[in-house]
Amino acid sequence: LSDERIVTAAVLVIGDEILSGRTKEGNAGFIAEQLTGVGIRLREVRVVPDDENEIVNALNALRARYDYVFTTGGIGPTHDDITADSVGKAFGQPVDIDPRAEKILLDYFNMRGVEPTPARMRMARLPAGADLIENEVSVAPGFRLDNVFVMAGVPSIMQSMFGSILPLLERGRPLLSVTISDDRPEGEIAGVFAAHQKRYPDVAMGSYPFQRDGRFASDLVLRATDPARLKEAEQTLRAALGLDR
Amino acid sequence: LSDERIVTAAVLVIGDEILSGRTKEGNAGFIAEQLTGVGIRLREVRVVPDDENEIVNALNALRARYDYVFTTGGIGPTHDDITADSVGKAFGQPVDIDPRAEKILLDYFNMRGVEPTPARMRMARLPAGADLIENEVSVAPGFRLDNVFVMAGVPSIMQSMFGSILPLLERGRPLLSVTISDDRPEGEIAGVFAAHQKRYPDVAMGSYPFQRDGRFASDLVLRATDPARLKEAEQTLRAALGLDR
Repeated sequence: LSDERIVTAAVLVIGDEILSGRTKEGNAGFIAEQLTGVGIRLREVRVVPDDENEIVNALNALRARYDYVFTTGGIGPTHDDITADSVGKAFGQPVDIDPRAEKILLDYFNMRGVEPTPARMRMARLPAGADLIENEVSVAPGFRLDNVFVMAGVPSIMQSMFGSILPLLERGRPLLSVTISDDRPEGEIAGVFAAHQKRYPDVAMGSYPFQRDGRFASDLVLRATDPARLKEAEQTLRAALGLDR
Repeated sequence: LSDERIVTAAVLVIGDEILSGRTKEGNAGFIAEQLTGVGIRLREVRVVPDDENEIVNALNALRARYDYVFTTGGIGPTHDDITADSVGKAFGQPVDIDPRAEKILLDYFNMRGVEPTPARMRMARLPAGADLIENEVSVAPGFRLDNVFVMAGVPSIMQSMFGSILPLLERGRPLLSVTISDDRPEGEIAGVFAAHQKRYPDVAMGSYPFQRDGRFASDLVLRATDPARLKEAEQTLRAALGLDR
């Protein structure tokens, strides 16, 4: 656990079905929550189509910039699953049948009496140097190459893979947060809130409107790594808003 | 309606609350569906934090590359709402009170007996050259500058704004789609499916696994602009899979 260093991450979602609106994306939100819980800052999400150039360019931009990149989608057995090849190309590594992944797949197929078709064995193709990421839902492994973690797009499989990745990650100091709900709309409290942000530059403050009984109200969210500082900023903001009476 | 030209778009989601996992993103999926319905191809989605440099860089990358860019989030009255300033900076345009937006806000505040605080009037600040995007839910307008459409993050407001934008957009030839559900898992039909994609290079084919009664099954999605060609690809694929008997 690094006490001071900020650990950053990005998510790269791969899939035409997200961009067409056919499938609603939820994996990035899941990963966001999990990362926040262990003090890793998710700084960017990108969604790109099933297009090798697009995947390669996005991956190379993100992996150079953030400590970790998590990809979802495109690791199945069909021709439109091109993530492994794209990751190989991004890293300049050849992609071929990995003996460890091959054994896992063959053992499973033999046990279940499933024919190891070329399409199925395609799921054992990994870039050179990759480590496997196992999961408890499907037999096809994800993989890690350097700071990039390649996962399935099916949420149950992705979540299982992410569970086996999480213990491997360097953690940062958790970003603690507190939410103050105020019945007034943002416009009424924005002046006080902005002055408070100036007074506590080390506490990030965001305002999120929501509707209650048909009227707009405000959630004021304060985030900091230092619990004492966060507590002080919360108490003084409550007082400034007249919410302490 | 352009019959041949491909019209492209990107969505830029702005907000720390998405990246922290606190708020689950749904606007991009809504926009994706709407764009697909009018023949505009959504090619990329990015989520960035409430950070001016990040917004400027992402916006400049996206607006140079796609016909349209739709942003969501960061146009409210609080200090963390920095989208208008960021868009102004991206375009090299000054940001100041817009007389049209000012009038809309003042008329509304006067009618409701609401005080036009500096924070509230901040919502009338727009980059020079911007056109207003009205909505039926809140009084604060979005705006358009060149090929960039700036909308609220609150889904009900964003959807109302998008509804007033949609008639203004150049439409492409709609990308039609058909889904063939097959009870078999992807690995079993991937060979036939890949061969079919080769036979119809002008019909995009994607496979999406799903679980039915605890077993993996496959949705095969075919997409094309030519209805006759799509129909033929569908019928021949059904035959190749033995689903026509």
